Amino acid sequence: MSRYNAVTDAIIKELQNIVGAKFVFSDAERMEPYSHDEVTDPKYVKMPEVVVLPENAKQVAEIVKLANRELLPIVPRGAGTGLASGAVPFKGGIVLALERMNKILEFDTENMFMVVEPGVTTAEVQKAANERGFLYAGDPCSGDSSFIGGNVATNAGGNKAIRYGTTRQQVNGVELVTPEGEIITLGGKCKKDATGYSLLNLVIGSEGTLGVVTKAYLKLVALPKNAMDLLAVFPDLKTAIAIVPKITAAGITPTTIEFMDNEAIKTVEVFLNEKLPHSDKGYYIIVTVEGDNEDTLEEQCGFIDELCGQNGALEVLVADPVKIWKARKSYAEADRARSLIFSMEDIVVPVNDIPRAIEEIAELSKKYGNIAIHCAGHAGDGNIHANILKDDMSEEEWHEKLPALQGEIYRMVYALGGKLSGEHGIGYKRVKLLEEYANPVELKLMRNIKKSFDPNLIMNPGKVIEV
Amino acid sequence: MSRYNAVTDAIIKELQNIVGAKFVFSDAERMEPYSHDEVTDPKYVKMPEVVVLPENAKQVAEIVKLANRELLPIVPRGAGTGLASGAVPFKGGIVLALERMNKILEFDTENMFMVVEPGVTTAEVQKAANERGFLYAGDPCSGDSSFIGGNVATNAGGNKAIRYGTTRQQVNGVELVTPEGEIITLGGKCKKDATGYSLLNLVIGSEGTLGVVTKAYLKLVALPKNAMDLLAVFPDLKTAIAIVPKITAAGITPTTIEFMDNEAIKTVEVFLNEKLPHSDKGYYIIVTVEGDNEDTLEEQCGFIDELCGQNGALEVLVADPVKIWKARKSYAEADRARSLIFSMEDIVVPVNDIPRAIEEIAELSKKYGNIAIHCAGHAGDGNIHANILKDDMSEEEWHEKLPALQGEIYRMVYALGGKLSGEHGIGYKRVKLLEEYANPVELKLMRNIKKSFDPNLIMNPGKVIEV
Repeated sequence: MSRYNAVTDAIIKELQNIVGAKFVFSDAERMEPYSHDEVTDPKYVKMPEVVVLPENAKQVAEIVKLANRELLPIVPRGAGTGLASGAVPFKGGIVLALERMNKILEFDTENMFMVVEPGVTTAEVQKAANERGFLYAGDPCSGDSSFIGGNVATNAGGNKAIRYGTTRQQVNGVELVTPEGEIITLGGKCKKDATGYSLLNLVIGSEGTLGVVTKAYLKLVALPKNAMDLLAVFPDLKTAIAIVPKITAAGITPTTIEFMDNEAIKTVEVFLNEKLPHSDKGYYIIVTVEGDNEDTLEEQCGFIDELCGQNGALEVLVADPVKIWKARKSYAEADRARSLIFSMEDIVVPVNDIPRAIEEIAELSKKYGNIAIHCAGHAGDGNIHANILKDDMSEEEWHEKLPALQGEIYRMVYALGGKLSGEHGIGYKRVKLLEEYANPVELKLMRNIKKSFDPNLIMNPGKVIEV
Repeated sequence: MSRYNAVTDAIIKELQNIVGAKFVFSDAERMEPYSHDEVTDPKYVKMPEVVVLPENAKQVAEIVKLANRELLPIVPRGAGTGLASGAVPFKGGIVLALERMNKILEFDTENMFMVVEPGVTTAEVQKAANERGFLYAGDPCSGDSSFIGGNVATNAGGNKAIRYGTTRQQVNGVELVTPEGEIITLGGKCKKDATGYSLLNLVIGSEGTLGVVTKAYLKLVALPKNAMDLLAVFPDLKTAIAIVPKITAAGITPTTIEFMDNEAIKTVEVFLNEKLPHSDKGYYIIVTVEGDNEDTLEEQCGFIDELCGQNGALEVLVADPVKIWKARKSYAEADRARSLIFSMEDIVVPVNDIPRAIEEIAELSKKYGNIAIHCAGHAGDGNIHANILKDDMSEEEWHEKLPALQGEIYRMVYALGGKLSGEHGIGYKRVKLLEEYANPVELKLMRNIKKSFDPNLIMNPGKVIEV
């Protein structure tokens, strides 16, 4: 028997009283978009009982109190661009969609902060910052549509993490509605804080299981005036990745170092119908350097060019940023176009173990009957997006092979000191995997934390950790 | 009645069996240095029942298990350079001194990490990194003697936080002995991690109340090849601080922006017996810029010089770094020399509120009979070290006036959106203040977290939060 109650007509009435009838709906057609995220496997689809669109923190708090009192699951949702089914209501209940809370509340140029509601897209934040001569350094690949609230929930990474860190480093405070419906502010505009446990950092990356973020204080940094992109093509991945520590140890901190394996390049080429350099046998390293002084950037690019040449590159090209980034960012789309159902793994290993991890993945691909596994990702921080493609496999074969293959991949990753997820999160998709691979003491501590924030276990239940 | 038991001869015997008789002592003379930190007020001194010096994590775990079984308070201790009495055994019990765990375990240049034991000093870490061409960016003012373990425990800040962040941003993983004696690793060498709640970030800054850090994975960054220091002298603090956002918003990220008020400068001048520029009426802003390209640095300094000139500076000097940093770093020592007993506040406010906070502190100084309050600190991140001096006040007057004055200061700080502590931590000294000023919901969550890590409340009890 479920620990939760069902959403009744009386509950829907109460929800309507809180947000207005217009912003509560429970018909299948309107709820459909809220029944999944970017994961296309039907296994990860589940219809809400009701969708509610609050306008402010006070309404969020009232809805959460109602859910807590009535033992209803409540699932906070941003733009639905997640890749771990973290915003899908697998235990039914209320989907709390934050799309109406989409205002930029404050732009504080003196202290260099923006204060925003959770439903502002990452791209809007970036744009607003740029227009005033600042940079918001969070930059997940889904940034055009992802919400800041979701970025905070998953501690989103992305392309600039090597230089600026993940979302955690961009967030200086949040307003949080706790699972018991209290509104609190953690952090804020102080640039330093040693005032007790960092609840802020605990909430960042907790995937909506410890409360609902209703406001975020985002750090701004100086906007670099110039950028240059290089595409270095290598004959194999080992040689390609070996260049990363050589660049950083030389005192250059690129904004970005990305990689694509040859299979990924070929698939993107087909998808874009556009010739990509050395696609027959090349492995890409894409480097972006940014700064104010153009001479310095040219010097850095010259140095990287020479370094790559000395270390086995087939060719180093000054890249057209639009073209090369379109290729890199189309990686997931290209795989989806080839195989609607695929599993995007988000493994992370120490940077110098990327080649070994990818070699072992190639071996596993063979072992499982040449199942297609493409690899691309963030070379600068060891984050590999390995896409395992269903292609024309039967449902049955897929659901039999996938977990076994993932098991072998994750055992290998943990043996290298790696982790399940670099930036997509555990969500619902990886709950069982976390139970299997994390240290039991760590799991115990996480469960205790979950219970202490959310005694009735109503907040995004079944995500991150089962209690 | 205390919830804790006393340390008996049988316990001492057991401790000797774990670490060897040589490394357990309970005579007053040898224990004296472990009875206080840098806080000189006798109110913050308390003798341990026994001091134990373990050699490795296994021994730490055995000692913690013993303490947990026998209900003995256990207080982890680094170098004792704390300023919040966080390592003093106010509830008696065992002081766990980590000074023998002082090895640099690994230097991983490829992944850019150092792995160290907690008893390595910050200065040794910095030196080892520099010798290999890297920078360890953690840099608390006490760095010459403070231990890395203590830096992690307090999330130490320091002079480079404006560019590189506090200790939190330098630590990618820890090995932790939990309050129940389990040894776990949180984080490690992966540069990204979205694998469940960030227990690592919860432990950083928890001041030894959630476990004992027995190993730290420290990030290395590129070592800037050049540095330049500027001393800008202003006629008042408001004008001085107003320069900070102008510098950063112009796209310059100095490594350091410090300030000293006129009283602080005068006291340091007396202490060092050395003439300081414009000490009659000047307020200092000290800026350090670092980078590889000397031309760029000169350009930046030229720009800052001009900016300061246009915005009210009396004079801008290219500073002798040795001299100016000696002055800045002597701030606490100079006040201690003048008044052995003084209270160093560690308030933090949004950067643009520093002048207002300091004006109000000056008003309060008058209101309390011209009690001497000096201010200096980290202008770049809003962190003000306000030293309240006892001078020749009677004990009685001091203990009557101080809490009342602090009360007024903290109410003002919180009204500005500030916090109790920017980098020194809550320790024992600020437990009551935290209870008074933090949000009750936050306090409840912190208490729950403490209980869930440490059900018997043996780990550094009475620090951060009373349960």
